[in-house]
Amino acid sequence: MKIINEIIKLKTATTLDFIDITDKIQKKIKKAGIKNGVINIQSLHTTMAVIVNEAEPLLIEDMKKILEKLAPRTYKYMHDNFKIRTVHMHPNESVNGHSHVKALHLPTSTYINVTKNKLQLGEWQRIFAVELDASRPRQIALQIIGE
Amino acid sequence: MKIINEIIKLKTATTLDFIDITDKIQKKIKKAGIKNGVINIQSLHTTMAVIVNEAEPLLIEDMKKILEKLAPRTYKYMHDNFKIRTVHMHPNESVNGHSHVKALHLPTSTYINVTKNKLQLGEWQRIFAVELDASRPRQIALQIIGE
Amino acid sequence: MKIINEIIKLKTATTLDFIDITDKIQKKIKKAGIKNGVINIQSLHTTMAVIVNEAEPLLIEDMKKILEKLAPRTYKYMHDNFKIRTVHMHPNESVNGHSHVKALHLPTSTYINVTKNKLQLGEWQRIFAVELDASRPRQIALQIIGE
Repeated sequence: MKIINEIIKLKTATTLDFIDITDKIQKKIKKAGIKNGVINIQSLHTTMAVIVNEAEPLLIEDMKKILEKLAPRTYKYMHDNFKIRTVHMHPNESVNGHSHVKALHLPTSTYINVTKNKLQLGEWQRIFAVELDASRPRQIALQIIGE
Repeated sequence: MKIINEIIKLKTATTLDFIDITDKIQKKIKKAGIKNGVINIQSLHTTMAVIVNEAEPLLIEDMKKILEKLAPRTYKYMHDNFKIRTVHMHPNESVNGHSHVKALHLPTSTYINVTKNKLQLGEWQRIFAVELDASRPRQIALQIIGE
Repeated sequence: MKIINEIIKLKTATTLDFIDITDKIQKKIKKAGIKNGVINIQSLHTTMAVIVNEAEPLLIEDMKKILEKLAPRTYKYMHDNFKIRTVHMHPNESVNGHSHVKALHLPTSTYINVTKNKLQLGEWQRIFAVELDASRPRQIALQIIGE
């Protein structure tokens, strides 16, 4: 039984960028040489989610719309009220209350079976890192356990 | 330490069918002979979720209502616009934009502790496969790790 | 490879109490002596969730608001109609349809990588147990696997 740690580095383009990371993960599993086990695919950020869905461009537009409806950018979040906020203030912080609230309804990490040295995915399942904040560098931590 | 793969096959009856698969999973854990460990219960479909909640029939009606309100079947999804869509077209595809959008807000897989050769669940916790698309054959992949 | 089971006991104060359990979990990992592996942090209740987000008090108010908007306490849930409900009736049951429906959109368990004998978390990531029902004693089950 082995435990392999890996990091995937990304540069996101914009808010609600859906980045298909399936092939990048497959490569890490191949490299790790684990035939049978599990993998945890974990965002290291509070405003980036890891989801599973179909890689169909129009569907991604639908998903963006529903996330925007759930936690609109135009709504006033207390988190963004820098006059009354007292903690976690940092330079160049973006107005990202909407990003955190979107994140509340999406998974921080996604856990997938590994079989035959590959992700065990259904025909249409693809793994996406979803940027909920503005464009920035991001890291996804992988932990692969198996033999 | 052992790693056991299993598949649970289901035939769903209708959209928003909640199928309690707790007992089926218990049997697979018993058969695997794993006393202490963890299990990943993973949908192999982009329009089927795996959740934990109480098996109370009226509550299930409440949950159906909230999912329908979140991503109504009556709404026009771009994914269903077969005139402009260019990829992943397949014969007999159902109009299922609403199913994918519902799936966005529900877990693809659920990860549960195994203790004493059983699922470690609280008194009211039951595991459901939730059909978000129309009636069809479905598969849930299990990965049990432990000793 | 070791598997360690632990329980964290909590007493919640009120509906939508967000309890930061990160430090409590760190202590259990330290005690378990596992350097490299994974941890599953699992609610044993159908109306308590385990989430990852930033520990900023105003943001927590934003998250409470969105959860209340998603499944308002004032809405009439069939689960709370004790005249027609026939199963799972128990003494002193609270009117908690809203709690179960909130739970539907939040994770029951959260799965985090362990590296260097610590949770592998990003700078702003903290782990919260979220009370969706009224004040009560609660249990979070941990399963730590690694070496």
